[in-house]
Amino acid sequence: MSGLVMSGGFVSIVGAGPGDPELLTLRAHDRLQRADLVLYDALSPPAVFSLAPRARRLFVGKRAGRKSIAQSTIHRLMIRAARRGERVVRLKGGDPFVLGRGGEEALALAAAGIAFEIVPGVSSAVAAAGSAGIPVTHRGIATGFVVVSGHTDEACREVLDSLAPHSATLVLLMGLSRRHDLAARLLRRGWSAATPTAVVLGATTAEGTVWRGTLATLGSCDPADLAPGAPGTIVVGQVVELSATIARQASRAPALAYAEPRARLAAAES
Amino acid sequence: MSGLVMSGGFVSIVGAGPGDPELLTLRAHDRLQRADLVLYDALSPPAVFSLAPRARRLFVGKRAGRKSIAQSTIHRLMIRAARRGERVVRLKGGDPFVLGRGGEEALALAAAGIAFEIVPGVSSAVAAAGSAGIPVTHRGIATGFVVVSGHTDEACREVLDSLAPHSATLVLLMGLSRRHDLAARLLRRGWSAATPTAVVLGATTAEGTVWRGTLATLGSCDPADLAPGAPGTIVVGQVVELSATIARQASRAPALAYAEPRARLAAAES
Repeated sequence: MSGLVMSGGFVSIVGAGPGDPELLTLRAHDRLQRADLVLYDALSPPAVFSLAPRARRLFVGKRAGRKSIAQSTIHRLMIRAARRGERVVRLKGGDPFVLGRGGEEALALAAAGIAFEIVPGVSSAVAAAGSAGIPVTHRGIATGFVVVSGHTDEACREVLDSLAPHSATLVLLMGLSRRHDLAARLLRRGWSAATPTAVVLGATTAEGTVWRGTLATLGSCDPADLAPGAPGTIVVGQVVELSATIARQASRAPALAYAEPRARLAAAES
Repeated sequence: MSGLVMSGGFVSIVGAGPGDPELLTLRAHDRLQRADLVLYDALSPPAVFSLAPRARRLFVGKRAGRKSIAQSTIHRLMIRAARRGERVVRLKGGDPFVLGRGGEEALALAAAGIAFEIVPGVSSAVAAAGSAGIPVTHRGIATGFVVVSGHTDEACREVLDSLAPHSATLVLLMGLSRRHDLAARLLRRGWSAATPTAVVLGATTAEGTVWRGTLATLGSCDPADLAPGAPGTIVVGQVVELSATIARQASRAPALAYAEPRARLAAAES
């Protein structure tokens, strides 16, 4: 049945979640199992590939210090493979539509007349905080949250300079190297120096670690020392204070008790 | 092996995703399969229960016009079942930490000394927009997004009155009945009347539908007419303009081609 429908090739733009392969969706798992080709980048969790046994894999991400593949090349690779009739998975860390260029790739496929789908994923914007025991919203503390790229000044200036201090939880992605500037900007805007602040490094992976402090001390956090090379998420707001209580008790959870998905991942590997 | 570890009872606070059961994570699926008791609310996708064949189910959500169960009762039910040695799944639509009281429940469990874990889910805040072909971020258009409860004036006033117009994509949850007020507030703040705006109803479910218009016409959207009773997400920003192009091509995707997860869901039902 599916053979007929699939003859034209097909691209699934798939969110891989924050790092732990058990946080893939059932649909993402299915698409990986059926894939002929997986295009992945630096944020794709390596363990995921055990779920795509039939697929060729192609790294198309950025590596520090190396020239990265042009976005147009990624588009061309996807389109060419789909036209050959292949099932392509374009794997992205987190959710494809959160700072992942999923929209650009979807538009390129649409323009080329290629059939595609978006498979949403668990966004690191929410799950990185959550993995550190930080609820991005909490009754009486925060009724909303703001996710913004801290990568350049231009990307976040307007939001950070306008948003009323303490009116929402702030989640800054890709801003680790600019943490001094980001803290200074928020302090100038009127955020309290004592605002609880966390840096979540390598969320939901075995190497994951959490730095906790305040806006005033954010600059002193040394990610290279804590978890070298891990992606980092900065979380700013009163909700960070709940982190210690929630994380302490959650860490008492019997992590090995639920072995099945790990067994499933291992089985997929063989 | 797991029998020993599990003897003490255990609560998993699980994000069920935006509605489509294929958007559950592998871990959520595993927890449901092992559950003795599932506490669910109105946003839990019904098809999910086929994945929890062993479990008793208890509805603890709000229904329009009925008295809802007190939050403290939900806490007591979870704690009591865990103390009996049961595996409890507290199932929540979307992600447990996005306007879902997951933090309150985690704190209650921590205070009672109950072992628990948070299983993050695909948040409706991102996936509802995505299912309508709207990327909440897009290079050159939006480098961030704001998620806020539109449920009451108090919940969103500070954010909406301060955030610079057009500086980020706005995602308003639980604000459907207040759409007139929300639009008026944003127009007063300086957002353009022509700002592309969408209402996504029943995202990722078979009944799902999308209304597209502008901030000026948001008031004229009639959710009761489009999809009665479905949860709705309002998305405001230039990214909404990409929706038609992305959704049109994505709808050409062979939806039935990947039958496996559906088969798995059906098998779990038997």
